[in-house]
Amino acid sequence: MADLSPEHEHPKAAVGWAARDQSGLLSPFKFSRRETGEKDVRFQVLYCGICHSDLHLLKNEWGNSKYPLVPGNKVEKFKVGDKVGVGCIIGSCHSCDDCSNDLENYCPRAKFTYGSRYYDGTITYGGYSDSMVVGEHFAIHIPENLPLDASAPLLCAGISVYSPLKFYELDKPGMHIGVVGLGGLGHMAVKFAKAMGAKVTKAMGTMDGIVDTVAAVHHLFPMIGLLKSHGKLVLVGAPEKPLELPVFPLIKGRKVVGGSCIGGMKETQEMLYFAAQHDITADIEIIPIHYVNTAMERLVEGDVRYRFVIDIANTLKSCSL
Amino acid sequence: MADLSPEHEHPKAAVGWAARDQSGLLSPFKFSRRETGEKDVRFQVLYCGICHSDLHLLKNEWGNSKYPLVPGNKVEKFKVGDKVGVGCIIGSCHSCDDCSNDLENYCPRAKFTYGSRYYDGTITYGGYSDSMVVGEHFAIHIPENLPLDASAPLLCAGISVYSPLKFYELDKPGMHIGVVGLGGLGHMAVKFAKAMGAKVTKAMGTMDGIVDTVAAVHHLFPMIGLLKSHGKLVLVGAPEKPLELPVFPLIKGRKVVGGSCIGGMKETQEMLYFAAQHDITADIEIIPIHYVNTAMERLVEGDVRYRFVIDIANTLKSCSL
Repeated sequence: MADLSPEHEHPKAAVGWAARDQSGLLSPFKFSRRETGEKDVRFQVLYCGICHSDLHLLKNEWGNSKYPLVPGNKVEKFKVGDKVGVGCIIGSCHSCDDCSNDLENYCPRAKFTYGSRYYDGTITYGGYSDSMVVGEHFAIHIPENLPLDASAPLLCAGISVYSPLKFYELDKPGMHIGVVGLGGLGHMAVKFAKAMGAKVTKAMGTMDGIVDTVAAVHHLFPMIGLLKSHGKLVLVGAPEKPLELPVFPLIKGRKVVGGSCIGGMKETQEMLYFAAQHDITADIEIIPIHYVNTAMERLVEGDVRYRFVIDIANTLKSCSL
Repeated sequence: MADLSPEHEHPKAAVGWAARDQSGLLSPFKFSRRETGEKDVRFQVLYCGICHSDLHLLKNEWGNSKYPLVPGNKVEKFKVGDKVGVGCIIGSCHSCDDCSNDLENYCPRAKFTYGSRYYDGTITYGGYSDSMVVGEHFAIHIPENLPLDASAPLLCAGISVYSPLKFYELDKPGMHIGVVGLGGLGHMAVKFAKAMGAKVTKAMGTMDGIVDTVAAVHHLFPMIGLLKSHGKLVLVGAPEKPLELPVFPLIKGRKVVGGSCIGGMKETQEMLYFAAQHDITADIEIIPIHYVNTAMERLVEGDVRYRFVIDIANTLKSCSL
């Protein structure tokens, strides 16, 4: 299969926008989706969020991009009318310790929604496209009261900050929580932390935890200083170079610097129910697909409050390929 | 008080060895100890371990040394015959959150055994000396079956690795624990981890935790790679410069890098009982006080298996001041 062209390797025709090289420029792209198997669901893509990781991968800044590259984690309409979403993962081994503990996101054989080599040897293409086929295990139910467009970023930015707030036990009412980097992830972290009962403020030596969403090289020293003893600095943005870690304040206050990467399927579903209960959605700017390269430029400049979401259903169809 | 000379600021004469400047060279030094208050105990110093931190402080490598500087955490004989030890701390506020939780070591007003400005304004002098006065709260009982000389390093190196093994929940039987830097702290970490039931081995992606005792600038990347997902790298050595922190593997495996600094008084006592029960002591080389400058040179070269302990009682008295 893998030696066929993207257009012919699967039976179902699909269209999307792809980058062909590390210029990262996106343009219309014909490819194909697999036939649905017993455990698969097929759906139309309605909205697709733009994540900062899309930008890193489009430009091969992490060094592992596979072209053509169709980015995107998305929200789709399940064929029987249910609204479903797909986050960053569409496959895992289902047998390792992490999979057994509902942590598919840490499975060493996890397959990402785009840019991964799938189990059949083909490359996965994401939600900057008209349709999608995914194993039902990796489809998330979207609660009725959540708007589809402003919920799309929950599947990526939302779960990326919700999960570490829970895992690092920073979800207790009254805790002082800081958020660094008020972008797509950061503004979701503020909303979730507030809904969990945290005080989201800033003062030296007072923080139980800080969620650091900055995806560029930056200084950790001021953040570690904001933490109280035994406080936790959680990194969820991935700069391309190592950061400077000041060891002395870490030791002196028994502080930790930890990482976190999205969340498992069970927790992603839990996060959506929590969001529905607390009326949490992303603040978004809806764009048509042909605006996507401009959106990427604006993303580099930090010029978005706080997430772009592509209106796939109304704008991708009108593209002539 | 603070404007008097070290020899006259307190009523009780004392002798020790002190560094006068950042050459770090130690030589005989006359000073004084306070009269015992209601809650104080006074004792003769028998053995005093040499810690790598002594070296950092002698040479002002952390930039906060106060001269004259008499280093040393020690083991003494309590006046009614009990054997007692003093670790790195001899004072704390007794009212903050950390003090309330038996974490005097993280108290912002904690006073260190040497080189701290004590509550009365005088500088604290450590165990490279003939006698000591300390608040009873900071004196640790040494179990009968532990030899005094080889137990001295437990109060510093021992608690520095015992405490993080407990706090970071790396003390469960069957866990894979790594130890980086087989010096004073490292060899104690191996002994404690083994006594807790850990397998102390090395292979990529298999470690639940690593205790990193290296006090020089070094690479964290290989250590983070040895950790399994959700594994913990605990830093207990304090390099003078920041280390490079690779963020990607931290995020991908939800790993944490944490610090830890000695332990509270309650836990230090608990550690000593654990050591007594499991026959854990430090591997030591006993030296006379006048060998101390040579010992410091050998410590720089890593030429000691694994801790120098100064035989204070038999060698300091014979010094002519």
